[in-house]
Amino acid sequence: MERTKRFILSEQEIPTQWYNIVADMKNKPMPLLHPGTKQAMNPEDLFPIFAQEVSKQELNQVDAWIPIPEEVREQYKVYRTTPLVRAYGLEKALDTPAHIYFKNESVSPVGSHKLNSALAQAYYCKQEGTTNITTETGAGQWGTALSYAAKVFGLDLAVYMVKVSYEQKPYRRSLMQAWGAQVIASPSMSTQSGRKILTEKPNYQGSLGTAISEALELAMQTPNCKYTLGSVLNHVTLHQTVIGLEAEKQMALAGEYPDIVIGCFGGGSNFGGISFPFLRHNILGGKKTRFIAAEPSSCPKLTRGVFHYDFGDEAGYTPLIPMFTLGHTFAPAHIHAGGLRYHGAGSIVSQLIKDKLIEAVDIDQLDSFKAGILFAQTEGIIPAPESAHAIAATVNEALKAKEEGVAKTILFNLSGHGLIDMTAYDQYLAGDLTNYSVPDEEIKKNIDQLEGLGS
Amino acid sequence: MERTKRFILSEQEIPTQWYNIVADMKNKPMPLLHPGTKQAMNPEDLFPIFAQEVSKQELNQVDAWIPIPEEVREQYKVYRTTPLVRAYGLEKALDTPAHIYFKNESVSPVGSHKLNSALAQAYYCKQEGTTNITTETGAGQWGTALSYAAKVFGLDLAVYMVKVSYEQKPYRRSLMQAWGAQVIASPSMSTQSGRKILTEKPNYQGSLGTAISEALELAMQTPNCKYTLGSVLNHVTLHQTVIGLEAEKQMALAGEYPDIVIGCFGGGSNFGGISFPFLRHNILGGKKTRFIAAEPSSCPKLTRGVFHYDFGDEAGYTPLIPMFTLGHTFAPAHIHAGGLRYHGAGSIVSQLIKDKLIEAVDIDQLDSFKAGILFAQTEGIIPAPESAHAIAATVNEALKAKEEGVAKTILFNLSGHGLIDMTAYDQYLAGDLTNYSVPDEEIKKNIDQLEGLGS
Repeated sequence: MERTKRFILSEQEIPTQWYNIVADMKNKPMPLLHPGTKQAMNPEDLFPIFAQEVSKQELNQVDAWIPIPEEVREQYKVYRTTPLVRAYGLEKALDTPAHIYFKNESVSPVGSHKLNSALAQAYYCKQEGTTNITTETGAGQWGTALSYAAKVFGLDLAVYMVKVSYEQKPYRRSLMQAWGAQVIASPSMSTQSGRKILTEKPNYQGSLGTAISEALELAMQTPNCKYTLGSVLNHVTLHQTVIGLEAEKQMALAGEYPDIVIGCFGGGSNFGGISFPFLRHNILGGKKTRFIAAEPSSCPKLTRGVFHYDFGDEAGYTPLIPMFTLGHTFAPAHIHAGGLRYHGAGSIVSQLIKDKLIEAVDIDQLDSFKAGILFAQTEGIIPAPESAHAIAATVNEALKAKEEGVAKTILFNLSGHGLIDMTAYDQYLAGDLTNYSVPDEEIKKNIDQLEGLGS
Repeated sequence: MERTKRFILSEQEIPTQWYNIVADMKNKPMPLLHPGTKQAMNPEDLFPIFAQEVSKQELNQVDAWIPIPEEVREQYKVYRTTPLVRAYGLEKALDTPAHIYFKNESVSPVGSHKLNSALAQAYYCKQEGTTNITTETGAGQWGTALSYAAKVFGLDLAVYMVKVSYEQKPYRRSLMQAWGAQVIASPSMSTQSGRKILTEKPNYQGSLGTAISEALELAMQTPNCKYTLGSVLNHVTLHQTVIGLEAEKQMALAGEYPDIVIGCFGGGSNFGGISFPFLRHNILGGKKTRFIAAEPSSCPKLTRGVFHYDFGDEAGYTPLIPMFTLGHTFAPAHIHAGGLRYHGAGSIVSQLIKDKLIEAVDIDQLDSFKAGILFAQTEGIIPAPESAHAIAATVNEALKAKEEGVAKTILFNLSGHGLIDMTAYDQYLAGDLTNYSVPDEEIKKNIDQLEGLGS
């Protein structure tokens, strides 16, 4: 009998609702706090920054299912449903009894899962009469996605791009410009927070935290302008649940259910997107699936950070978020997985880690690239350096299954492809990359500064 | 009722046979000639260069259907079937009554249709005991595809990459290396033909014709080594018919049949791949579909070349091919659509042009990029500069349909994406690109050299 490689759902099966796991969590995430008053924030408090609809989604602890607007779903059709793929080639190379599946979000026209939330956020901004939006981007995946989404819904967009990525990834900048966005290297002289950082550290190569400060500042100072974020926050993860909701149906087509679900971890949106629809069945239905967040050793907020209230940005413009964090002043090493260079984790994931409903592992940079090349050579797709962390964690679990002689079913999210990250692979193949483990004192120094922010 | 954007076939509907149009052509293509004896070649004459099975396919004028080996079909599952997409966004932007569809070959892991033939050629080489293969690549699409295919089937591969592309497209080189291929900029000092050209023109930026000479020379001098080609030849186009065969079923799902089929044109394989299965119904079933090959104004072999016997390469190593050609000494301008920079057309397409069964148009570079950006902004996908020529031709036909008030159905092949060609888009957006039309005397000079090759 012919074996099936890719499990495909029809366009009619694109989800009609996103899944809001908060409604089903026994221990809800702690509230966002106003940094001045330390009072729990209401949706209205977020209206000056975010679209109203996403502000409500951000704090919604009641509705497990949020309808996807027809216009957003229509745009999802450009690339959704995405394939669920059985990684026969990788299994064979590892000689493992494990069944490995991956959800291929790299087929989106921007090359990653980020479009799932970009289209939703741009749509809501447009609906509410916003004309301009701002954002930050690290690796460039989010900025690329939002550039396309802004074009689709007719919004003007300014993107603050972390300087090291701006320089390492000129194609990413070009892509955003091809879709009509304005792209600024961050830190920049165009904002107060950017100028302050550049004055203190003239050669600073930027961080997501800094870029967020700049984008927020521009949004607050521009008429009819809203800010958008590509990860960390609850509403972003909510939009990403289309990944897991489709995967659930596709695993059923394959006649399997995952023992382990794995995603790489930056702020948490792709990890939550693939995990939460399955985690639902752990919470409500007694399933025992393990969920593994794969973060880089150089930015180990889940494995070595603390659970604490902290800012989402460098300058301290955001609400205080209850998060596993390395401190908002933490400056991550310049690893190539730019999308994972962020100091904190979203509040939902942080609560779930605290409650031991999910796990985290850290992955060395060299192991991630080794896994990335293995995947490219066995499954054809060059993974994004971020996604390569999920692959490395998958390889580890598949080899464990082999040692134990157990046919585990492993599902991971291929959040994006690495076709625009070939400089990184070049350096890896040339032997020019190294591992970097953060010294304890570096972590302690930044975490100590959290005192007084509430815990 | 919900409108369908993407028409998807299941994996089980990947074609089981390729379509060999030669069997159905009233006027067969003229034979390949041995350059020394001027005698028609037999498959055996090609065995020293090509795999035996593809040599037979190359000259097969009898069998309309050639079975696809199970191992190749299994590998097609990595990305096939590919979607047929209704370009609602483009239609709306053009305000045209035309229905525009495109076959999205850019979803292959290497980003283009080239993998369809690369997998087949690598498979046959492996089957016949070959250990090493060589090839050339222009834009890098073919070399990338063959690198992956060689890895899949366990062959060693050396790729001669046209120097201008080698320098303009470092990511393409990295991709090939990530899949384990050796990549050499052409012209190089590693072959006699390369050294000869470099001696005469030290700054020569290379051409496909030169790179083919080098790859052929290396193959002929290496034990257990075969040469592979990414376009022009009949067997390559044969393998690409999976595109049109799938599209035919998908158009039926959409309830339509194309009035016009369009492909960009380099050597003819993607154009033939989408066209021939439909052209079959013109020949056998009385359909009246128009077929339009879109070539660049800077390399106008179909619109301004002559029909003549000519070499496929610069140095004159190949058999003589009956082709529309600008002469094998023609050095195309350095346009960004590197895959279209080739002096001649395959023998099947050339015969079909002669018999007026298909048409050709030439597209200016600036018009191709303008169409590419429009497509990116309306359909989300950044097209390869090559594919942008097909889009420009589609835009022209859709605007004609609007003028005439006729709801034509247009199908084009999106042969690849342009994510690795962002330098070109950068230059276009910066206003740094120009058009280039070849002077008549330049064409005449090269064509005059064909005398004595047979016509």
